[in-house]
Amino acid sequence: MAASVALIQGASRGLGLEFCKHILKNKSLAAVVATCRNPDGAADLRGLAGQHPGRVTVLKLDVNREEDVRGAAERVKESFGRLDLIVNASAMLHPSGKGETSLRDVSAQGVISTLTTNTVGPLVMAKYFAPLLQKGGGGFGQQPAEKAKQHGGIIVNITAKVGSIGDNGLGGWYSYRMSKAALNMATRNLSIELGRGRPKVVCVSLHPGTVDTDLSRPYHRNVPKDKLFSPEHSVNCLMGIIESLSIEKTGKAYNWDGTELPW
Amino acid sequence: MAASVALIQGASRGLGLEFCKHILKNKSLAAVVATCRNPDGAADLRGLAGQHPGRVTVLKLDVNREEDVRGAAERVKESFGRLDLIVNASAMLHPSGKGETSLRDVSAQGVISTLTTNTVGPLVMAKYFAPLLQKGGGGFGQQPAEKAKQHGGIIVNITAKVGSIGDNGLGGWYSYRMSKAALNMATRNLSIELGRGRPKVVCVSLHPGTVDTDLSRPYHRNVPKDKLFSPEHSVNCLMGIIESLSIEKTGKAYNWDGTELPW
Ligand SMILES: NC(=O)c1ccc[n+]([C@@H]2O[C@H](COP(=O)([O-])OP(=O)(O)OC[C@H]3O[C@@H](n4cnc5c(N)ncnc54)[C@H](OP(=O)(O)O)[C@@H]3O)[C@@H](O)[C@H]2O)c1
Ligand SMILES: NC(=O)c1ccc[n+]([C@@H]2O[C@H](COP(=O)([O-])OP(=O)(O)OC[C@H]3O[C@@H](n4cnc5c(N)ncnc54)[C@H](OP(=O)(O)O)[C@@H]3O)[C@@H](O)[C@H]2O)c1
Repeated sequence: MAASVALIQGASRGLGLEFCKHILKNKSLAAVVATCRNPDGAADLRGLAGQHPGRVTVLKLDVNREEDVRGAAERVKESFGRLDLIVNASAMLHPSGKGETSLRDVSAQGVISTLTTNTVGPLVMAKYFAPLLQKGGGGFGQQPAEKAKQHGGIIVNITAKVGSIGDNGLGGWYSYRMSKAALNMATRNLSIELGRGRPKVVCVSLHPGTVDTDLSRPYHRNVPKDKLFSPEHSVNCLMGIIESLSIEKTGKAYNWDGTELPW
Repeated sequence: MAASVALIQGASRGLGLEFCKHILKNKSLAAVVATCRNPDGAADLRGLAGQHPGRVTVLKLDVNREEDVRGAAERVKESFGRLDLIVNASAMLHPSGKGETSLRDVSAQGVISTLTTNTVGPLVMAKYFAPLLQKGGGGFGQQPAEKAKQHGGIIVNITAKVGSIGDNGLGGWYSYRMSKAALNMATRNLSIELGRGRPKVVCVSLHPGTVDTDLSRPYHRNVPKDKLFSPEHSVNCLMGIIESLSIEKTGKAYNWDGTELPW
């Protein structure tokens, strides 16, 4: 039996794929459940699974389809009966692939799609996986000695610095910013509800920095070279934070360097 | 010609209706554009319009229908050519009429509907009415002497204290909380984009207190009597804040008593 079980949602590429790689490499006793919309098209993920026989379960999951989420939770329940970590990594800037430069670019449909994928998706994941996280064995993070303060599972919602309302000095990117602000509220709410049970479930939002992935590609030329992280570097930092989490740190948003991100 | 023009979105009842009453009573030279989903059913609003002949334009506008919003903007453009104030008052707690008590009550469809009405609606209003607000004559708020700092119109998004992520200590009400957090991000973004032009447009979020309306009705028994405001009292406070606004105060969320609400 696996010592711990991590589910990475949005594992086909970018940061999600990198979380799978990192855990497979650094947590040799962990099992990874990797979900993506289209497993057949996710060649890198399937290659990774092939390199780690018996350790990776690839499940088809479109975060916009509640029945996919329910089905995946049932599969994880049957196979493992519990979960120690969920990372909600999937997101988009906007259906067009670029954030709105100004109000002119805003359309109801664009905002709704972005909110549905980036915000509603992770919340629906939490709904269906919470019972499994409450059975988690605390395989990730730090456990205090006091039993009542120990946690079972951890939920990580990948947020973005531009989703901080207080930090917003530039504007633009309406859909994406709003989706991440609302996701941060979901994180906060989840931390309260799931912090009451026992064992507790920790829930945080993490900002990965500006990372060299498909999502940020249209903007790479505006980013100074030393500010554009590789997915390896970003996930290394984020996993460091995850392994430092305890119930004391729940319900907040953190940057890749561990500093707190204002709401 | 009217000295100033105010548009109240969601004017059929509750706070929206009260904003109409307040302005008609206290700004004797102002014209009011009152929008609601179903003017035929809005007896109180039609009664009010009858009491103030020539001062109220009632328009049919479902904030979820982009074509309604576009159409209303065209009508206001033809009739007035400008706008001094928009109040986005419409919202719901959840399609069921009650906020989610826990994750169990969360459904993707419920969250999406709530976000669509409470968050996307006000943003789409801003998109179509921004050009008219930029032609506003500064009929509401305070104008500093310096010309470059004067504003044309004002956008007020009615938010809620429970939409403050930092203030959230109780959890629950997922859809409503998330919708107001995302609305606050929209306010912030709008304040930046529309604060650049000239004349500037001021944009704030305002929390009305706990007010005796249909929206809060299911929870009235939990509210101490002196904490449950009448719509008159709440709108009186909010209009006091609106009349004190200038570009220096844009991009923030304020409580009914003028204190700042944390994000
Ligand atoms: N890159 C950055 O600079 C940066 C900065 C701040 C925050 N972030 C955040 O980091 C996270 C990961 O982004 P990334 O940079 O790795 O982006 P990415 O390389 O574009 O990957 C996006 C992932 O989301 C998945 N996805 C999109 N819609 C989905 C849906 N409906 N259901 C399931 N999966 C879906 C994609 O799957 P398919 O392969 O099926 O399309 C893909 O795996 C996101 O939350 C993003 O907002 C990134
Ligand atoms: N009452 C409180 O204690 C309280 C506290 C904090 C914040 N607020 C906020 O205050 C604002 C006003 O709420 P209220 O208390 O006055 O609520 P209310 O009495 O229930 O009125 C809600 C209004 O929203 C309208 N509406 C709903 N969906 C709409 C749509 N799709 N398009 C257009 N209009 C729509 C309703 O129109 P119909 O008549 O057509 O249904 C009605 O006019 C809301 O933003 C609310 O979130 C209220």
